[in-house]
Amino acid sequence: MNDPQTPALAGLMQRALAERVYNFSPGPAALPAEVLQQAAEEMLSWQGKGVSVMEMSHRSKEFEGIHNAALADFRELLKIPDNFHVLFLQGGAIGENAIVPMNLIGRLGAKAPQPKVDLVMTGLWSVKTEQEARRYGTTHIAATSVDSNYRNIPDVASWNLSDDAAYLHLCTNETIGGVEFHEIPDVGQTGTHDQGRIVVADASSHILSRPIDWSRVQVVYGGAQKNIGPAGVTFVIVREDLLGFAHQHCPSAFNWRIVADNNSMFNTPPTYAIYIAGLVFQWLKRQGGVAAIEQRNIAKAKALYDFLDQSEFYRNDIDPACRSRMNVPFILRDESRNEAFLTQARANGLVQLKGHKSVGGMRASIYNAMPLEGVSALIEFMREFERTSA
Amino acid sequence: MNDPQTPALAGLMQRALAERVYNFSPGPAALPAEVLQQAAEEMLSWQGKGVSVMEMSHRSKEFEGIHNAALADFRELLKIPDNFHVLFLQGGAIGENAIVPMNLIGRLGAKAPQPKVDLVMTGLWSVKTEQEARRYGTTHIAATSVDSNYRNIPDVASWNLSDDAAYLHLCTNETIGGVEFHEIPDVGQTGTHDQGRIVVADASSHILSRPIDWSRVQVVYGGAQKNIGPAGVTFVIVREDLLGFAHQHCPSAFNWRIVADNNSMFNTPPTYAIYIAGLVFQWLKRQGGVAAIEQRNIAKAKALYDFLDQSEFYRNDIDPACRSRMNVPFILRDESRNEAFLTQARANGLVQLKGHKSVGGMRASIYNAMPLEGVSALIEFMREFERTSA
Repeated sequence: MNDPQTPALAGLMQRALAERVYNFSPGPAALPAEVLQQAAEEMLSWQGKGVSVMEMSHRSKEFEGIHNAALADFRELLKIPDNFHVLFLQGGAIGENAIVPMNLIGRLGAKAPQPKVDLVMTGLWSVKTEQEARRYGTTHIAATSVDSNYRNIPDVASWNLSDDAAYLHLCTNETIGGVEFHEIPDVGQTGTHDQGRIVVADASSHILSRPIDWSRVQVVYGGAQKNIGPAGVTFVIVREDLLGFAHQHCPSAFNWRIVADNNSMFNTPPTYAIYIAGLVFQWLKRQGGVAAIEQRNIAKAKALYDFLDQSEFYRNDIDPACRSRMNVPFILRDESRNEAFLTQARANGLVQLKGHKSVGGMRASIYNAMPLEGVSALIEFMREFERTSA
Repeated sequence: MNDPQTPALAGLMQRALAERVYNFSPGPAALPAEVLQQAAEEMLSWQGKGVSVMEMSHRSKEFEGIHNAALADFRELLKIPDNFHVLFLQGGAIGENAIVPMNLIGRLGAKAPQPKVDLVMTGLWSVKTEQEARRYGTTHIAATSVDSNYRNIPDVASWNLSDDAAYLHLCTNETIGGVEFHEIPDVGQTGTHDQGRIVVADASSHILSRPIDWSRVQVVYGGAQKNIGPAGVTFVIVREDLLGFAHQHCPSAFNWRIVADNNSMFNTPPTYAIYIAGLVFQWLKRQGGVAAIEQRNIAKAKALYDFLDQSEFYRNDIDPACRSRMNVPFILRDESRNEAFLTQARANGLVQLKGHKSVGGMRASIYNAMPLEGVSALIEFMREFERTSA
């Protein structure tokens, strides 16, 4: 997109680009400007075909090409093993909080007459997941950091895992609290084989920010609207042998076996959202892929946490061992300055910094599409705000 | 959008507009070019805010404005009574085929210990709906036109309705077969009151093409990707007193009561699809609203059916009393000419005319966004093709 097809378009793009702000929204979140430029250019006529991607039949060869390229790039970026299916669904992570147990809780059949899910509770998304899973069976809290107000991850040695749970659920990045599993621990998974413990991860807010160790997780799911694309498409990456256990009341459109057998086309997929996701995957490949973006994410997070830790005006209270690289909540020493902070930040082109109401303070979400320059601009602003608040 | 903000953009738009074809796709389907133009212009920076609508937090005041305006325009266009809720969900009509019974089949409680749905079968979408409803209770076929291969609608006097069904389901426009209820019959509904028979209509493929008589239908649902916007957003219009009966296994994200209580923001909505839907609603208002577009739809359909009926080369076999104004299937007398027809049509800028595999032949889907000029161009092409095939 460095070479717009018409000088005229370049003019429009320049004006719009000049208006662009650094958007720290937790999701739906900032997308790479060059992805949006390509989408704008192709809006009325995709590759000269005279139709928008939005107007394509999902059965057309044009859209099938877009869909399959997106799936292939997603697989390549995350090195997803061949015996995992990649599904695109709808309903977001909250939808999946029901759809996951509907597909998996009966997995052990007669071996576990009381269908059960184990969960490790690390924040508000874990809590929501547990509430929804209860609808389909028993839930067992294997560990929780509620006593620290979800500011750490309980030591794996303390996890009280069941032997008869259909799976263990982890929210591997808590978007609200800013807590991240920097690795998924070994709890007796056996990787790509049809044995051992099953770990299911809600990776909505850090998917594609770092590689995934597929020997440690058998289902990874999430909403797209942080690191992948627009809200409205949900990904499920599931090991082949875990298909086929759907609950009798699971809608066909959310039955992973049916969705997999139809290459995510059992019902009309959210075609435009998948197209944008595909453009984001291509962008990420141009950035050097997941290993390269991980290094950038580490650098961005380190810059911001280092600044917070040396400051006497701001602070982040999360255990440094599990601070999220994606969502950085922070609190002003003088909370009466919150509104002034947000107003002045906005005036400096730094938007969506208000923290979640359950946590208060501020939160900077710095997903893949946030450049280091955005984080540097935030730090500079925060330094100046601190100086003038003294 | 007749006044693009930059001369440069006008140049791009002219090139793209010149490439535009007449797209007869059954869905995802053609959208008004001026909607796409506005979306392209606003892609990188919505109303000077420096972010795309795709990048907006669904909790931001900007997106709340977009969302609420879309809801208000949808209500205004269809004159939806105040005691009906309008919900935006995900999962399409096939998702709703499960979600509707999950929300309604238990409505009668102890008065109907065997939860039951009545259905009138008028085509393949009715069949799919019945298969999915069976998962949640008993289904009763009140009437079917299977004997005519779904080419008519059974006379309402012959419908064998149950007294203990939670609701009667109709697919009021069969997209594949091209059969439309031109009115919903009186079967003892009592309109906006909490009594009488409940009629649920899948109106995916003719919503907004004509007014709705709210005394005859209590739930209207469908996917957006024909007359509303992109695939990935689903509408449910439901009378207030029908909320609160959800099945214990209904996911929260699809529980109409929860969705209504949260103004369709219980989970992250498909924000960009809702934005495009809102632009389509504004476009439709500029066209004069639903009554005006209905007249245009009648004229378009009449032109095409009149042409088919006078032809000895093409034919449509649907009972004229229930021919769809939106989806017009037709068959060539000489089926060996099918491929040539499609190839030459494409060369004339007329695309996506292939019929559904279960019906064969051709199908022209002529939704709201298809101008009369598109239908005229199709007829002209068909006349010429007939002449050269003689």
